[in-house]
Amino acid sequence: MTHKIAILGASGYTGAELIRLIATHPSMQIAALGANAKAGQSMATVYPHLRHLDLPDLVTADEIDFAKIDLCFCALPHKTSQEVIRDLPKDLKIVDLSADFRLRDPAEYEKWYGNPHAAVEVQKEAVYGLTEFYRDEIREARLVAGTGCNAATGQFALRPLISAGVIGLDDIILDMKCAVSGAGRALKENLMHAELSEGYNAYAVGGTHRHLGEFDQEFSKLAGRPVEVQFTPHLMPANRGILATTYVSGDPQAVYAALRDAYADEPFLHVLPFGETPSTHHVRGSNFCHIGVTGDRKPGRAIVVAALDNLTKGSSGQALQNANLMLGEEEIAGLTLVPCFP
Amino acid sequence: MTHKIAILGASGYTGAELIRLIATHPSMQIAALGANAKAGQSMATVYPHLRHLDLPDLVTADEIDFAKIDLCFCALPHKTSQEVIRDLPKDLKIVDLSADFRLRDPAEYEKWYGNPHAAVEVQKEAVYGLTEFYRDEIREARLVAGTGCNAATGQFALRPLISAGVIGLDDIILDMKCAVSGAGRALKENLMHAELSEGYNAYAVGGTHRHLGEFDQEFSKLAGRPVEVQFTPHLMPANRGILATTYVSGDPQAVYAALRDAYADEPFLHVLPFGETPSTHHVRGSNFCHIGVTGDRKPGRAIVVAALDNLTKGSSGQALQNANLMLGEEEIAGLTLVPCFP
Amino acid sequence: MTHKIAILGASGYTGAELIRLIATHPSMQIAALGANAKAGQSMATVYPHLRHLDLPDLVTADEIDFAKIDLCFCALPHKTSQEVIRDLPKDLKIVDLSADFRLRDPAEYEKWYGNPHAAVEVQKEAVYGLTEFYRDEIREARLVAGTGCNAATGQFALRPLISAGVIGLDDIILDMKCAVSGAGRALKENLMHAELSEGYNAYAVGGTHRHLGEFDQEFSKLAGRPVEVQFTPHLMPANRGILATTYVSGDPQAVYAALRDAYADEPFLHVLPFGETPSTHHVRGSNFCHIGVTGDRKPGRAIVVAALDNLTKGSSGQALQNANLMLGEEEIAGLTLVPCFP
Amino acid sequence: MTHKIAILGASGYTGAELIRLIATHPSMQIAALGANAKAGQSMATVYPHLRHLDLPDLVTADEIDFAKIDLCFCALPHKTSQEVIRDLPKDLKIVDLSADFRLRDPAEYEKWYGNPHAAVEVQKEAVYGLTEFYRDEIREARLVAGTGCNAATGQFALRPLISAGVIGLDDIILDMKCAVSGAGRALKENLMHAELSEGYNAYAVGGTHRHLGEFDQEFSKLAGRPVEVQFTPHLMPANRGILATTYVSGDPQAVYAALRDAYADEPFLHVLPFGETPSTHHVRGSNFCHIGVTGDRKPGRAIVVAALDNLTKGSSGQALQNANLMLGEEEIAGLTLVPCFP
Repeated sequence: MTHKIAILGASGYTGAELIRLIATHPSMQIAALGANAKAGQSMATVYPHLRHLDLPDLVTADEIDFAKIDLCFCALPHKTSQEVIRDLPKDLKIVDLSADFRLRDPAEYEKWYGNPHAAVEVQKEAVYGLTEFYRDEIREARLVAGTGCNAATGQFALRPLISAGVIGLDDIILDMKCAVSGAGRALKENLMHAELSEGYNAYAVGGTHRHLGEFDQEFSKLAGRPVEVQFTPHLMPANRGILATTYVSGDPQAVYAALRDAYADEPFLHVLPFGETPSTHHVRGSNFCHIGVTGDRKPGRAIVVAALDNLTKGSSGQALQNANLMLGEEEIAGLTLVPCFP
Repeated sequence: MTHKIAILGASGYTGAELIRLIATHPSMQIAALGANAKAGQSMATVYPHLRHLDLPDLVTADEIDFAKIDLCFCALPHKTSQEVIRDLPKDLKIVDLSADFRLRDPAEYEKWYGNPHAAVEVQKEAVYGLTEFYRDEIREARLVAGTGCNAATGQFALRPLISAGVIGLDDIILDMKCAVSGAGRALKENLMHAELSEGYNAYAVGGTHRHLGEFDQEFSKLAGRPVEVQFTPHLMPANRGILATTYVSGDPQAVYAALRDAYADEPFLHVLPFGETPSTHHVRGSNFCHIGVTGDRKPGRAIVVAALDNLTKGSSGQALQNANLMLGEEEIAGLTLVPCFP
Repeated sequence: MTHKIAILGASGYTGAELIRLIATHPSMQIAALGANAKAGQSMATVYPHLRHLDLPDLVTADEIDFAKIDLCFCALPHKTSQEVIRDLPKDLKIVDLSADFRLRDPAEYEKWYGNPHAAVEVQKEAVYGLTEFYRDEIREARLVAGTGCNAATGQFALRPLISAGVIGLDDIILDMKCAVSGAGRALKENLMHAELSEGYNAYAVGGTHRHLGEFDQEFSKLAGRPVEVQFTPHLMPANRGILATTYVSGDPQAVYAALRDAYADEPFLHVLPFGETPSTHHVRGSNFCHIGVTGDRKPGRAIVVAALDNLTKGSSGQALQNANLMLGEEEIAGLTLVPCFP
Repeated sequence: MTHKIAILGASGYTGAELIRLIATHPSMQIAALGANAKAGQSMATVYPHLRHLDLPDLVTADEIDFAKIDLCFCALPHKTSQEVIRDLPKDLKIVDLSADFRLRDPAEYEKWYGNPHAAVEVQKEAVYGLTEFYRDEIREARLVAGTGCNAATGQFALRPLISAGVIGLDDIILDMKCAVSGAGRALKENLMHAELSEGYNAYAVGGTHRHLGEFDQEFSKLAGRPVEVQFTPHLMPANRGILATTYVSGDPQAVYAALRDAYADEPFLHVLPFGETPSTHHVRGSNFCHIGVTGDRKPGRAIVVAALDNLTKGSSGQALQNANLMLGEEEIAGLTLVPCFP
């Protein structure tokens, strides 16, 4: 059986990445592509790398007959997404890639995003979309909230450690290196090639990045007490990839065992042999996450490094993985692309 | 039915690219991976981006039982390849990715490569592997000689024009921009990141690049008279991609029509609407070739620009396409990966 | 004696490059920096790499007292520049970096730029700013029109050949590879890192690039008859550099001799030994232009490759070189920076 | 008075960078260039970006008459350097850029570098070359040991904090992002463009990087007790630049004040306004170091980010700064190059 799929926000990078993945999916068909500002254009115009695919032209969301859609991906900007989803049919399965339904507490949402939530009722339905940790809920969900790409990377490195109680909770540091596509296709000066290539810098230093809301929510829930990490993102001269270097206190072998055990059966999360470290090069364009653990020369200190592709495992790949669960398909369908190296 | 595949030279970039593609192939299984210098190592060590695949360890060519192999890809260096293939079983189907069997005339081979051919008898069997133009021969072939990546790009732009007689044959200029992976994984100073990134240069200027042997052979055969093009390659700060900017004399609309007609039914060769130009960005990681035609302000002059990925359509993708034909599989099997953008 | 310098359009890349160069000039002082849209800001805010310099804050052009200025660089956008310069004091020495005063014939200007010229009287005064070929006129000029960066590169490769009569005039082809900073700091989708890095494409194919107006004007004047070249620019994943690969008919040794003789005493134009080819890597950040000549295997065909930094020799370095002449300073003052490699 | 300068190891990146800087120095003349493996070659061959300079050809160290040399830079590989310097005249002023004379304790040297020191007597003479903190000793020194590039960056961020007693000493974390030229011009697979561009990874994780020897030595000396930091370097897809993200416990305003006060009069160390963060883009090709301080949302935690160019301030620029002091020249001579952006 072929599922009819709609994508809203198809003109952004996560929209294009969804199409790239779904094109290899055995039982999904793209039935509608929404992009209000570019409605009427073909995908070949907006993304020439998709020109060989037989895709519908872009339309406005209003033009889509959602009664004929089995599942809708919303790859819209934050804030727009909640307004659009609020008005979609209440029985439509939705995977949202924005930040709008990630935080359970509307007050937390308003704290991090600066505006009151416009669809609080819908928010209550949403399931947090970190597949490996919310599989059962996702299978039953109508609305799944895709995680932040940084939030996914940090959680893959840290959740099993918090659950297993093998690390201290008060001195966790996440130093994250993020490729530029995470910022989307919007025109900003610091994202220009001439401004970015051959250099790098920290940004949102000091605990101001919005993905901290997700870390706080999830880590505190796991630990059963408030957990606040330090998290500093850095903008890298690269298009795809997140590398999280995580500094924790705890026995390195216990840390390693916790991760290895937690992910032993996961198709996409690979824990490297102890002492090896991953690279974003080796997950590019794929749904894999590589994780490495090393002990520091300082006793009782461990470093966990996690690498994934922000557009795939950090966003559109995760979304497709969740959609597979919601539709009763094999979880890995359309997601077995080998990383593209070199 | 699943075909058992061996790859010799699996530790190079074209070997790794073959594995990336075959991993998605519905009816091929990698049974043996040869790499003499790295025999004994796992592919996960040599190429960590392949670590999730269940692959045999690297072995020497001697250790492979070719009686159990249905088809062997040889991704060995030039000159080594002919010596190895000479000694392989005479009924083994082989797709060679080196330069060793491309030229029909041993004298031409010696002129361009500087040494006498070591397997002239085998060379006589070889079929030139430019799939779209040698399909019938390839289907019947035991040994197919993969083309040079530059040679493929230039021929896609020019062959239909020579066949249709719509361009002059004495003033063809091919200005080619080549990504660095075309030079392979060998350690050379000019291929280092610090030497290459953020700059570019011409090389092999003046008609000395070995792929000219292929252009001469193929274009002269098509035209029924000697044809010598000018061809200048340039090294680009990028990992994948060839862009050929071709300057020809002829009516631009006739040039366009010849290309459009020749490739109307081709699954991988896409002629853009007249006046549009392709980009290597939009074919990266895929088996597609995009071709654009524009008329110059000077009457009777046309510019044909062709873009492909040197590792895929220019090498390993072409090799797999040929192997599909030789094994009676669907020609596009394992080759429908969407380009990876951004 | 220290000359007081103003720069209008100081917030663009060519403005910032002027400041970088003038900071090492022994007898120039930056007295005013104009940038209407960013007036009131400090240069440290707009360009943090200049933060250690003691520079005036940005102001509007109206706020500058030009009576106290010895020479004004105009690094404004095309069309804006002519309107601003029209209203500046008539005795103010000006080096304009825009396209507005390059073409002698207002009809040609309108043909290439699409609007009637707004300052035709001022245009009559302007001297074409290709220093090495207009030194005497520039020394006496009040207004010098900086050349296009592509136009400079192509002319360095070709002018001596046309003057010496050693090449055919009807089949000149300029295939040019241009770094992204040539497009300025304006926000455009194709200039984003995610869109540009790791790929390349031709643009303005077919004889539509505006710098052709300069080539036509200058080459025709030199030849004493109309000369129209073919010129195809390509956008490169790099921040600085232009590489012009020039295909001409003529005896390669005669071509080489013409260039070597013409530039024997030039401080910034270096002709490499016959058969060597330049690279943009080796002129980055400097005012040098490297030129190489090679003969093709086809008799009577030569390839001339020229490399320079579009922001320096192609724009701001040229402008400073001209200003030095206009102010009676040593021509190379402030321009002896060694290329920045790696 | 013009000082006659020799450079041993002139064919490496730090050698070439020294030449780039000295070319603008008012009172230094390069009298001899040593490079044993490339002796007999011209610098124009080895580094075409230096072709316009009037430089002596490369010779072996034996061929240099050191009696005519006022100061010698040794830019040789580790271990080779100590053997060469041991045999140089005992009254020759030397600035060494290798690791060989950085550590005061021969046992520490052997621990980090794996071999006994071959010139222990000479080592006793050496002064640690972190200019801003050892000025008086450097002025009187015969032999100055240039610091590691990572070691310099980390010390600029942390020394004033340790001296002022404003941070905890037991939980200092240095997450460092290092450009590829820091690894030199040697051919290594992971430094190839195809392996490095568009991705990044940690290396020497867990406290194994040799620059830790310098951190331990210097920080412990400052603190008057053993101090061991955690230090994780990362390899970046860029040619120049180090960014150190430093996590410390302490009052952010006190941290800021300590840095601002310590560097108030330093010509090359710039502390940004509180809350701003530096970028390697803005120091590229220059001798500047930009430092920013931010407080974390977690009380009592501060983040200090420092950016410099590893080849300039991290190595050759530092070396020239020290040579200026040793020769009685102005400390900033030859070092006022403005960063090259974009």
